[in-house]
Amino acid sequence: MSSAQFKKIALAYSGGLDTSIIIPWLKEHYGAAAIVAVVADVGQGDDFGQVRAKALRTGATEVVVADLVEEFLTGYVWPTLKAGAVYDHKYLLGTSFARPIIAKKQVEVALATGCDALAHGCTGKGNDQVRFELTYKAFAPQLAVIAPWREWDIRSREDAIAYAQAHQVPIEQTVKKIYSRDQNIWHISHEGGALEDPALEAPEDVWMLTRSLADAPDQPEYITIGFAAGVPVSLDGAAMGPVALLTRLNELAGRHGIGRIDLVENRFVGMKSRGAYETPGGTLLLTALRELEALTLDRDTAFMKQHLALDYARLVYNGLWFTPQREALDAFVNQAQQQTTGEVKLRLHKGHALVAGRRSPYSLFSSELASFTMNEQYEQRDAAGFINCIGLPIATRTRLHQQRATQRHGG
Amino acid sequence: MSSAQFKKIALAYSGGLDTSIIIPWLKEHYGAAAIVAVVADVGQGDDFGQVRAKALRTGATEVVVADLVEEFLTGYVWPTLKAGAVYDHKYLLGTSFARPIIAKKQVEVALATGCDALAHGCTGKGNDQVRFELTYKAFAPQLAVIAPWREWDIRSREDAIAYAQAHQVPIEQTVKKIYSRDQNIWHISHEGGALEDPALEAPEDVWMLTRSLADAPDQPEYITIGFAAGVPVSLDGAAMGPVALLTRLNELAGRHGIGRIDLVENRFVGMKSRGAYETPGGTLLLTALRELEALTLDRDTAFMKQHLALDYARLVYNGLWFTPQREALDAFVNQAQQQTTGEVKLRLHKGHALVAGRRSPYSLFSSELASFTMNEQYEQRDAAGFINCIGLPIATRTRLHQQRATQRHGG
Amino acid sequence: MSSAQFKKIALAYSGGLDTSIIIPWLKEHYGAAAIVAVVADVGQGDDFGQVRAKALRTGATEVVVADLVEEFLTGYVWPTLKAGAVYDHKYLLGTSFARPIIAKKQVEVALATGCDALAHGCTGKGNDQVRFELTYKAFAPQLAVIAPWREWDIRSREDAIAYAQAHQVPIEQTVKKIYSRDQNIWHISHEGGALEDPALEAPEDVWMLTRSLADAPDQPEYITIGFAAGVPVSLDGAAMGPVALLTRLNELAGRHGIGRIDLVENRFVGMKSRGAYETPGGTLLLTALRELEALTLDRDTAFMKQHLALDYARLVYNGLWFTPQREALDAFVNQAQQQTTGEVKLRLHKGHALVAGRRSPYSLFSSELASFTMNEQYEQRDAAGFINCIGLPIATRTRLHQQRATQRHGG
Amino acid sequence: MSSAQFKKIALAYSGGLDTSIIIPWLKEHYGAAAIVAVVADVGQGDDFGQVRAKALRTGATEVVVADLVEEFLTGYVWPTLKAGAVYDHKYLLGTSFARPIIAKKQVEVALATGCDALAHGCTGKGNDQVRFELTYKAFAPQLAVIAPWREWDIRSREDAIAYAQAHQVPIEQTVKKIYSRDQNIWHISHEGGALEDPALEAPEDVWMLTRSLADAPDQPEYITIGFAAGVPVSLDGAAMGPVALLTRLNELAGRHGIGRIDLVENRFVGMKSRGAYETPGGTLLLTALRELEALTLDRDTAFMKQHLALDYARLVYNGLWFTPQREALDAFVNQAQQQTTGEVKLRLHKGHALVAGRRSPYSLFSSELASFTMNEQYEQRDAAGFINCIGLPIATRTRLHQQRATQRHGG
Repeated sequence: MSSAQFKKIALAYSGGLDTSIIIPWLKEHYGAAAIVAVVADVGQGDDFGQVRAKALRTGATEVVVADLVEEFLTGYVWPTLKAGAVYDHKYLLGTSFARPIIAKKQVEVALATGCDALAHGCTGKGNDQVRFELTYKAFAPQLAVIAPWREWDIRSREDAIAYAQAHQVPIEQTVKKIYSRDQNIWHISHEGGALEDPALEAPEDVWMLTRSLADAPDQPEYITIGFAAGVPVSLDGAAMGPVALLTRLNELAGRHGIGRIDLVENRFVGMKSRGAYETPGGTLLLTALRELEALTLDRDTAFMKQHLALDYARLVYNGLWFTPQREALDAFVNQAQQQTTGEVKLRLHKGHALVAGRRSPYSLFSSELASFTMNEQYEQRDAAGFINCIGLPIATRTRLHQQRATQRHGG
Repeated sequence: MSSAQFKKIALAYSGGLDTSIIIPWLKEHYGAAAIVAVVADVGQGDDFGQVRAKALRTGATEVVVADLVEEFLTGYVWPTLKAGAVYDHKYLLGTSFARPIIAKKQVEVALATGCDALAHGCTGKGNDQVRFELTYKAFAPQLAVIAPWREWDIRSREDAIAYAQAHQVPIEQTVKKIYSRDQNIWHISHEGGALEDPALEAPEDVWMLTRSLADAPDQPEYITIGFAAGVPVSLDGAAMGPVALLTRLNELAGRHGIGRIDLVENRFVGMKSRGAYETPGGTLLLTALRELEALTLDRDTAFMKQHLALDYARLVYNGLWFTPQREALDAFVNQAQQQTTGEVKLRLHKGHALVAGRRSPYSLFSSELASFTMNEQYEQRDAAGFINCIGLPIATRTRLHQQRATQRHGG
Repeated sequence: MSSAQFKKIALAYSGGLDTSIIIPWLKEHYGAAAIVAVVADVGQGDDFGQVRAKALRTGATEVVVADLVEEFLTGYVWPTLKAGAVYDHKYLLGTSFARPIIAKKQVEVALATGCDALAHGCTGKGNDQVRFELTYKAFAPQLAVIAPWREWDIRSREDAIAYAQAHQVPIEQTVKKIYSRDQNIWHISHEGGALEDPALEAPEDVWMLTRSLADAPDQPEYITIGFAAGVPVSLDGAAMGPVALLTRLNELAGRHGIGRIDLVENRFVGMKSRGAYETPGGTLLLTALRELEALTLDRDTAFMKQHLALDYARLVYNGLWFTPQREALDAFVNQAQQQTTGEVKLRLHKGHALVAGRRSPYSLFSSELASFTMNEQYEQRDAAGFINCIGLPIATRTRLHQQRATQRHGG
Repeated sequence: MSSAQFKKIALAYSGGLDTSIIIPWLKEHYGAAAIVAVVADVGQGDDFGQVRAKALRTGATEVVVADLVEEFLTGYVWPTLKAGAVYDHKYLLGTSFARPIIAKKQVEVALATGCDALAHGCTGKGNDQVRFELTYKAFAPQLAVIAPWREWDIRSREDAIAYAQAHQVPIEQTVKKIYSRDQNIWHISHEGGALEDPALEAPEDVWMLTRSLADAPDQPEYITIGFAAGVPVSLDGAAMGPVALLTRLNELAGRHGIGRIDLVENRFVGMKSRGAYETPGGTLLLTALRELEALTLDRDTAFMKQHLALDYARLVYNGLWFTPQREALDAFVNQAQQQTTGEVKLRLHKGHALVAGRRSPYSLFSSELASFTMNEQYEQRDAAGFINCIGLPIATRTRLHQQRATQRHGG
């Protein structure tokens, strides 16, 4: 463990046991006279008055609670949605892009309050430590970084409770916490407990935001989501701000059991892990946006965007948000999505978000072209020429092969 | 229209009105004394005795019915499944990879029976003409190609019926056919009718192989699919041949309403079109295989395979099956999937195939590594070094930026 | 051949025999009362007064000569250079991106002068017809397109001369033209003649802009090219406009024998062909820019940009300039190159442009980091953690393999 | 520093000062009674008798000298060449793929001689430590790894000499070593000294294997290299084994000054560095192979292979040789290169390897197709249909745009 000493440390503080015991520990081990608890509201639904009070009771000398919900959506969630980024086929990156905005705010507070170090409560085996610390490096590489879970001897929840009791850290939850969870306005993640064995089905008690298929209504519900340039802007024809819109979509999707994911994923630090995720409203948005793009993007742009979406997802998952590569990808996506404006009707039913209609003023779909009847714009015989050109390398290869075979067997 | 004359023409024959009227037309316009009707059984479930009889009644001089079902699965469907190829996010390529095997058989018959031309019944606006003709070029570029639907004056179903009646072609269906369909053991596609407007929901009468969500059982059903090196080999622990296995999976998935797709797609010949697809058993297989790969493929191979799956899908969709590129991609996939062996348990419920467990003797998932408790194989402090190396370019960029800012504002 | 008749046709006119005979032919076959000859100056170095006079003498009713040189560089060449696009390892796309700007101007003139058709002098086997006509479709899909070389019976240079003589078209060159060439300020291409056999070396008489290695000076020459945000802006410290800068670089590189290419390439229309290209100044620019990027781009952005450069090159080669995909790629490149500002010193010597120094105010190169001596910013032991995380999937795989082997051979 | 003790350590030993002082240091710090010096001959041209003697004199208890030259070429160099892998535009990976074979042999010796640890002499800032240790993990993750340069206090060449003198390690070179070099049969690398500043030209004294342009002969020399399935097999028509062939090509290219590279590269551990490389024979092989592929690979396969070559190069550079991803890529490449058989004639002249002819029995080049004259295989009017299909999305987009504009401005 480092023998460094710091005067003032900014801690990314959540109010849970994990970050609470860090406060006395930092004072004890790094001699910090002051601890600034930075609390980011990204829509996790906590009582931030209580969180603030708890931080102070636990020994924080300052607490900053920052409402980041709208900035989170417009600056992080929407760009990733526009990019179509999905990690390992399924994961909508809910935790991944929350870390950079939290860490950026933490750095801002640290610099404004004269801190000489940054601390977080992530373990040494997960992705979150990477996401936090890469953001620190992007904004203040000169500040020291403290990751107590990589340093101390606390090795289990029991150890943590013992440490808390020995250091007068208030512990609200006495019941055993089965799952490790992370929530924000976009999603909730679940890890640990029975989920640690990928051979076992996720137990029903894992899920928190979405109804089971059995409990979801038997009757479908139709909604219409409107987009402007790839960004969601309305529900059923009524313009809505990002927070109100997503909040409403979360309710609707949750009621219909939409947005559950069970995933064995590849962590950036090298191991596989298994998690469960609920992204109810986000699932509706991604589904709807893809349907709209099917009208507004031409084939080649859509295909390239699919490739880049894989790269974008990996980058976000790995915490490389504040990088030139992400900025360049965003420039591509913003340009490509300029005309992804229109409305998509979805049928919500028994865990499904089924497309029930798409419309766009910039639609490239021409029913005249697609239909089986004739028209002026497309001359069917053109297809013969097209096939002949596309097939020229194929036919040439076969002809040359035939010639060689003839020569071998000839004369 | 060409004034060429042919002696003997091999026609890809389905028994439907579209290909039936081609027989007299070929004789009339190309002076062909002989027409060989090539009928491919790819699991579409037709009565091939009737198809044969109809071809002869309509004027074919020979009929060859080829049972290609198993070869279709092992030589075309399984490789595409192993590659993870999905077109435009959703389409499992059911029609795309059926065309090459049918056309290849047609060429074989044509060469064996001494034909000088090949004919098919595809329209001039679709993908199928490309898939047929690129296969012709790959195996017999010396044979002439006749695509009556690009040449004649028949412009509608009504025209076709009139032509049939004028030429003594028996017409079984008198009821109006709403949708244009293509079926094989892997899937059925639906186009036309109300589907031509992407703003309208697909009517319930479109679907043929899968129950509606309302009709699907309220009780879930669990099944376990086994794979060996990326190929499905068993159901619920019992080894099964490809045809029996997929047939059973189709029944199971169909009963639970699984595998419906509503898609606005980008055709190779340039326009967008809208189609509906049902791939019941295939949806189970793709879902299960992805879950198994999550255990058996390492992160980097999995990521690259995702990229290549996009390319593979485009290639198959475009009819470029018999190309060196497809062969090279298959070599990659076969190598990558060598250890994708194991079992995946699925819960079938209300249109969903939900993963309920994955196991593999080659699993790279280590619960010891993934858990929050410590162990010998992973030293948490390693993560700090990892982050510092990964973040070095980020930190360097910021430091250099800070230096420049200092220099500008200094002295 | 079409029996359509047009009133006024805009022809992309070069002054050569190929486009000259088109003028009487269009009048004869399409009944056109008026022919507007559109002459684009893209730096090919012709005497445009003579070209104008010849067009009128040959029967054109109007001639428009448009100076596009600077727009060609800033709007087409620089973006492609910034993207780093090179086709088939070597080709700097000199003809490819000239076609779109010429065709765009042609359409503008056609619309302004009330034409109802567009004509060009490209053959039916090459890429240029595609590049012209895709541009026509992007700006005026309603205008008819006439490609005489795909339509008429003229099949050789001899046929063309005979037609010219029969129609009073003046023929200046009586000597046999060996090579087919295309020149602009960026490059010159050569095809035909002895080049048609890829087993033969390109004869010395092919080359026009660059000295042979034997004739190039024995003494090297040093120059320094400056860039701002990926665009060349200066030579040896003196700011220069694009046309003056490239003109000077062409002289310098030509004198030193730099920029010859001998290429077997894959045409968009399906066949392979062989061409020779000279891009003297462009070779210096691409070389220099890559060296500068090595300082200013971070690894991940540079790597992704290399991938996208392949796609960009294919797109430009194929004539898909006026597409949403190119616009989106440009957005990526512009963002990525924002800090590619600085100077690169080159040594020109015997056909080589060798880097002799690179500097940038935004350089990410830190000699302190790269050196073998220690420093504060990089802790060597971090590398151990980095390697352990990177190697975790590798080690896990081997350990699991070892365990299985032990189990098999055990008890 | 670890307090672990080891009984027997296998050291990757070169005979230089860097690895020599490690022997006494390992004994001193890890209590190792036995040190096995593993010396890999990869064609660096050392006197291995002397190296062996020196190891023993310095305290090694066993020395194993392994001749890996041919295996290095056939198992590592040829596959990378076939893949077309080049890192950062220029680097032919000479050091990168030598590390895995050396480390693999070291592990084999360690296991055969009962070692409990592996040691190497790489610094903590470079790529080589990664390449060594990832190979260790692939074959023996159970063995401990010791990287003295990351652990000890020796910080400079002076420190190392002092340590050597204090521990009776013989020092042959007393003259100041300016550059850090790594050589094998494929290449030599140079780092350090004046090369550390990328603004400075590489001094002439850097280069060892290639003549300067001034000293290269004024007369060109022609050679012909033969390949079978992408692997070099002959020179000027005479079959040659890999070692003899490359040795001869190195002489030829070196005499003509071919194969120098000056590179600012992106290291895997995060920083940029600058190096100079000479790969004389390798440059001829890569040049020739690309020319042959231009005949034998179809466009789409060639294009995809270019993309994968970038990935392959990154993978090799990063030391990820023994991974499933590399194996899968090799499978792709082997399949794609099956018909890359033939001969390429090169003109060696003043630092250039210029193509002077390519021939292949599997050539897809058809001069009949490429020429301007007509023929049966290609109907020029097909191109019109091709263009219309390719351009359909472009035209549709413009037409829809025009319609909207009309509607807006209309009545």
